[in-house]
Amino acid sequence: MSKFLLEKYKNLVPYVPGEQPKDQQYIKLNTNESPFSPCPAVMKAIENEVPKLKLYSDPECKKMRVKLAEVYNVNENQIMLGSGSDEILNYVIMAFAKELVFPDITYGFYKVFADVNNVPYTTIPLKEDFTIGINDYVCSGKMIVIANPNAPTGIALSLDKVEAIIKANPTSIVMIDEAYVDFGGESSVPLVKKYKNLVVTQTFSKSRFMAGARLGFCIADEELIKDLNTLRYSISPYNVNSMTLAAGIATLENEDYTKAKCKEIMENRTYLTKELESLGFEVLPSTTNFVFAKCSKVSGETLYLTLKEKGILVRHFKQERIKEYVRITIGIKENMDALLKAIKEII
Amino acid sequence: MSKFLLEKYKNLVPYVPGEQPKDQQYIKLNTNESPFSPCPAVMKAIENEVPKLKLYSDPECKKMRVKLAEVYNVNENQIMLGSGSDEILNYVIMAFAKELVFPDITYGFYKVFADVNNVPYTTIPLKEDFTIGINDYVCSGKMIVIANPNAPTGIALSLDKVEAIIKANPTSIVMIDEAYVDFGGESSVPLVKKYKNLVVTQTFSKSRFMAGARLGFCIADEELIKDLNTLRYSISPYNVNSMTLAAGIATLENEDYTKAKCKEIMENRTYLTKELESLGFEVLPSTTNFVFAKCSKVSGETLYLTLKEKGILVRHFKQERIKEYVRITIGIKENMDALLKAIKEII
Repeated sequence: MSKFLLEKYKNLVPYVPGEQPKDQQYIKLNTNESPFSPCPAVMKAIENEVPKLKLYSDPECKKMRVKLAEVYNVNENQIMLGSGSDEILNYVIMAFAKELVFPDITYGFYKVFADVNNVPYTTIPLKEDFTIGINDYVCSGKMIVIANPNAPTGIALSLDKVEAIIKANPTSIVMIDEAYVDFGGESSVPLVKKYKNLVVTQTFSKSRFMAGARLGFCIADEELIKDLNTLRYSISPYNVNSMTLAAGIATLENEDYTKAKCKEIMENRTYLTKELESLGFEVLPSTTNFVFAKCSKVSGETLYLTLKEKGILVRHFKQERIKEYVRITIGIKENMDALLKAIKEII
Repeated sequence: MSKFLLEKYKNLVPYVPGEQPKDQQYIKLNTNESPFSPCPAVMKAIENEVPKLKLYSDPECKKMRVKLAEVYNVNENQIMLGSGSDEILNYVIMAFAKELVFPDITYGFYKVFADVNNVPYTTIPLKEDFTIGINDYVCSGKMIVIANPNAPTGIALSLDKVEAIIKANPTSIVMIDEAYVDFGGESSVPLVKKYKNLVVTQTFSKSRFMAGARLGFCIADEELIKDLNTLRYSISPYNVNSMTLAAGIATLENEDYTKAKCKEIMENRTYLTKELESLGFEVLPSTTNFVFAKCSKVSGETLYLTLKEKGILVRHFKQERIKEYVRITIGIKENMDALLKAIKEII
């Protein structure tokens, strides 16, 4: 680091994104992207924006918010958009967190957001079966972040349990990160009407084929959205580009396509789970577009490395409690079969 | 604001972007956008990315940095990309500023970046003729930000004067914001080889027809870029989307188009300046894609409001020293003539 970097960042350890190999020769099952391209209407919507790129994008993202409000049955003033949901997660923590609480096993970025914002954090261990013990979350003023469904476990929390956590923490913000909710989870969005301390985030990167376009959003009480916009307008008011906004609207106008593709992913998940189990794997119950699995015949690290040698990328985490597992993104059936074939060769 | 917002943001006043009317019926000369659309190769490059949007964008923005390195004759490790240069300006201030210094009349966002990062700032008055007095900038450890050419004045600082400021402040970062440099200014990029405390930022929003795509970059010593990447990877690693990266590369591969359009803007600037002067306006010497002008026959505010009534948007600032001026973006000749006609009717 340079001698100019402020002291407070000297020990900051940034997030490490999943490998993004540039040669594209791998079967990529490591970053929970969709195996499907956006629907045809997205191309048209984007082409339409290109000549207008000379003008700034709409900092209010008005049309997109109106469309989202319609789809999610909320008010457009209860929505803020971001360049992916990562940007939003950071804004929410920056705006509201004096201290932060999240599970010991969850999305690895939360602790980085805490660190970069100088916010102390505590982790609460998941139960033995990797589920969240809701009674552990009475946090007296500390902000809570829960990925629901959780990553990398894939396990969902039911809506009544989420509500119990929100209710138990009226003086602090509860953020529910629903990046994977469209693959069988229950969304907390309907609770926004009832609770002023709830922020729900979602992304177009997983179920909506747009990881490379960078689009996420949050839904919360209008007062919280105003606060978040104060920060957004103080850092990057034009945070979502025009092409992505148009692509997002076109995607929302074609929800049948999205639903059909999510259904296909869920079917492939059922298939992969069954096949892995028949090979002796233990697979956690997933409501996401990935499975988290381990096998007593091979360590997580060996499985990850050997699959990589065979041209298949999955994700492995070195954290003690989960180091025997690999996280496998659900792809098209053909890729699931290639994976199963490779695994059979390994074990 | 909500009761949840952290105390430190309670008095934060966000940046107010120039008006972005949604009906598009105005002649828009208020936000210094280009009147020209991107070159045809950009459309092709973007179309090529759409099917691949399912995958995350490259967090390293490798190809784009390689291309920029070639164009600017620097090393690719001396470059970081941002979602517009605003995002980068914020990262630089966040990373390096204990205190901040900038001219009293300049881009209005600098004070907001300072505030949102809790960094105290001092402003140094421009001289009577709105030029920068370089001897005023011996800042003993305080970070300096200078827009060169400056906005909204349009006045450029020569390279030797920029170098004098960098030299006089070896213990602090000097950031030169070159958003408008392609319209006749001298870039400080060649100085990066020589000074480890220099950060130069540029944008694709003005001279490169891509305000709506959100692309900016900074060039600095490799050690500073590493520090900035530590922050970027702690907040928003995929900050530039794939379509914008492809569009940026295509634009750089067609520098002739960019140069021709910049030349046209500069010709129209000469034309508008002469015509305004013949109408009794005082026009500051501009090396940007806008002019800053006042007329004793009409106040800045009246001129702005009356032009708006006539369907032409320019920008007016309420700050005391410049409240008699309006800032007019240079457009195509037809729009300059429409503006001149409207002004003749007003005065």
